[in-house]
Amino acid sequence: MVYLTRREHFNAAHKLYNHSWSREKNEEVFGKCANENWHGHNYELLVTVKGNPDPDTGFLFDVKRLSNIIREHATEKLDHKNLNVDVEFMEGQMCSTENLAIAIWKQIEPHIPSPVKLHCIKLYETPRIYVEYFGE
Amino acid sequence: MVYLTRREHFNAAHKLYNHSWSREKNEEVFGKCANENWHGHNYELLVTVKGNPDPDTGFLFDVKRLSNIIREHATEKLDHKNLNVDVEFMEGQMCSTENLAIAIWKQIEPHIPSPVKLHCIKLYETPRIYVEYFGE
Amino acid sequence: MVYLTRREHFNAAHKLYNHSWSREKNEEVFGKCANENWHGHNYELLVTVKGNPDPDTGFLFDVKRLSNIIREHATEKLDHKNLNVDVEFMEGQMCSTENLAIAIWKQIEPHIPSPVKLHCIKLYETPRIYVEYFGE
Amino acid sequence: MVYLTRREHFNAAHKLYNHSWSREKNEEVFGKCANENWHGHNYELLVTVKGNPDPDTGFLFDVKRLSNIIREHATEKLDHKNLNVDVEFMEGQMCSTENLAIAIWKQIEPHIPSPVKLHCIKLYETPRIYVEYFGE
Amino acid sequence: MVYLTRREHFNAAHKLYNHSWSREKNEEVFGKCANENWHGHNYELLVTVKGNPDPDTGFLFDVKRLSNIIREHATEKLDHKNLNVDVEFMEGQMCSTENLAIAIWKQIEPHIPSPVKLHCIKLYETPRIYVEYFGE
Amino acid sequence: MVYLTRREHFNAAHKLYNHSWSREKNEEVFGKCANENWHGHNYELLVTVKGNPDPDTGFLFDVKRLSNIIREHATEKLDHKNLNVDVEFMEGQMCSTENLAIAIWKQIEPHIPSPVKLHCIKLYETPRIYVEYFGE
Repeated sequence: MVYLTRREHFNAAHKLYNHSWSREKNEEVFGKCANENWHGHNYELLVTVKGNPDPDTGFLFDVKRLSNIIREHATEKLDHKNLNVDVEFMEGQMCSTENLAIAIWKQIEPHIPSPVKLHCIKLYETPRIYVEYFGE
Repeated sequence: MVYLTRREHFNAAHKLYNHSWSREKNEEVFGKCANENWHGHNYELLVTVKGNPDPDTGFLFDVKRLSNIIREHATEKLDHKNLNVDVEFMEGQMCSTENLAIAIWKQIEPHIPSPVKLHCIKLYETPRIYVEYFGE
Repeated sequence: MVYLTRREHFNAAHKLYNHSWSREKNEEVFGKCANENWHGHNYELLVTVKGNPDPDTGFLFDVKRLSNIIREHATEKLDHKNLNVDVEFMEGQMCSTENLAIAIWKQIEPHIPSPVKLHCIKLYETPRIYVEYFGE
Repeated sequence: MVYLTRREHFNAAHKLYNHSWSREKNEEVFGKCANENWHGHNYELLVTVKGNPDPDTGFLFDVKRLSNIIREHATEKLDHKNLNVDVEFMEGQMCSTENLAIAIWKQIEPHIPSPVKLHCIKLYETPRIYVEYFGE
Repeated sequence: MVYLTRREHFNAAHKLYNHSWSREKNEEVFGKCANENWHGHNYELLVTVKGNPDPDTGFLFDVKRLSNIIREHATEKLDHKNLNVDVEFMEGQMCSTENLAIAIWKQIEPHIPSPVKLHCIKLYETPRIYVEYFGE
Repeated sequence: MVYLTRREHFNAAHKLYNHSWSREKNEEVFGKCANENWHGHNYELLVTVKGNPDPDTGFLFDVKRLSNIIREHATEKLDHKNLNVDVEFMEGQMCSTENLAIAIWKQIEPHIPSPVKLHCIKLYETPRIYVEYFGE
């Protein structure tokens, strides 16, 4: 079993705002992240798959193909977008990095062909804050 | 003459949109950066000052004080903000990284006390794109 | 279950010296690290917690609060300090990065409120050497 | 149980080419990586060992000794070499990063003295692509 | 005057070998870099242009267009290639990083349209070694 | 004219303390940096030389030889040392990063053989603070 990771990035705007709460409560809980005019990040996304290398190619999975899957199902839907407004698969959810990592797992996982398996979504919100999700 | 650099960061949303142009022209020129719902970045800001070290301290300039000047006059006005909407000193300007670097120079320069001089504003929009401005 | 990591840093001096050994044995075992006049590092500390995101906030744990816990119980007691002399919670221990990571776990773990759990302390001694501790 | 990681690097040339296939099939599967005149990488290698710190030294394992083991059995046999041609322990295998990580495990593992155990080989092919192998 | 930098990368194989010298002299001067079976690098290329931002766009130069110029005239001719064998514009020259930086300047400079000017080619051979060329 | 840079590192302890001042004034001016029990850093040192590449080698200067000069005259005298106590060439000076950069210039400059010239000493005290010195 070998683990292969590909790193991609995207830029996006978001805010953290729970519409069932008052504005005061939002500001108290989310601080600057509740700024009504949005703020944004350069997200760095690391996708890890696992499996056994193919003896003919030495590859666990073609990294170009992995990159294409990530771009088609995740980063192209997120890059230069507003996470709260433009991204169908985040609808009805708080746009935290935690929820975004779980949502990216759900976007990518069905496209990783057996017997290769998706292992981890790691998502940097800033160079000093990141979230990991292993599918359960 | 020695050069001292302090690195700070801030997150912000923006879009590139020239209101004297049609929506079509904006999309043609700015591509994804014209997304009406904003997008954002983790900006990294490097501020360089120059001068001669003080024999008593060995310091060109106290780096904590430099950090405070940058925070008070630049990053606190930019962090978790929308550059097009929330930032007074960007009013009436296109929110490109070029213009933002020049505007940050103008914010910080008056607060660097003589004989120390501001030398450079270096601003990373992403880890692969940055702008430098030397004041002229 | 999601994992959230926050990175912080501190600078400190230390030496590696076992007082129950001769100076010769210390120099033989620890080499330059036994220098009696101390040496030091820029340590980078990554603290990972795990749990389930709160549906109201989308947060596993407020990252600002995590940062405050790390600062209050670890980095403020370590930054610009001498690990062998100034740090109560390292008393009587060799100041290796291994022992420091375990000690930081013990400092931080009691302050992570259930049901969130501390998962990992990762401590960089230099950009090319790091230690991880998972609590057992 | 503590985990200690040491990072080393080496530069090498390689190509991905399966000699039991036609040139066309190689180009179709491996793209630019099949270039008959080779291409190359700055590989970054992270070796992680695990065990309990020695009470006398505070060390899990002397990091200088770990570095020497990595250099003697892996990086000196790989640095400034052609992986397909010059490296005995890659003979008869496709020179993918996956296979190289597994081969480096086999080179290093016998030299880590009990009770310390080799835990992981992590190998960066580029700053955005890496492979991990845990020995099984 | 503002300076704008775009970072790109490419992987390539090369060797350092002066054919007017004996093999012994090549090994004495170039050490491991003279390995006849090639070695390689992940090169990181930073291209800096300078000029005044356009008031309508806020851009000194469209960074996407800069990226396309770099790719068309430099990195696509270098990526996954052998610098000594495959690259027309390095023919007859020693494939040092110094000469490669100068050659990349000559490739890119004619395609930067006036009044914008090419300012610097910065080329990392490894994360710890780089060369800069300013055109004269 | 081409510029070639080599990056090296060293770890050291220091404190900032002016013995002609009271302890109170030292603490007021230098804050945590005046801690009498020392603190320390992982310094990263970048040395840049300039000149014309040799047509026979393509090298401005052999980077291995540059590395040896830096190690012999700077980093070996600094690594795992106490800058205030152990380093002859810092005697009688405040151990600021500014002064250390100037002192390293004086150590290295006489050993760069004409016509190659030393161009810059760049010294990182932390990943977010650095000093540059160009010899005048």
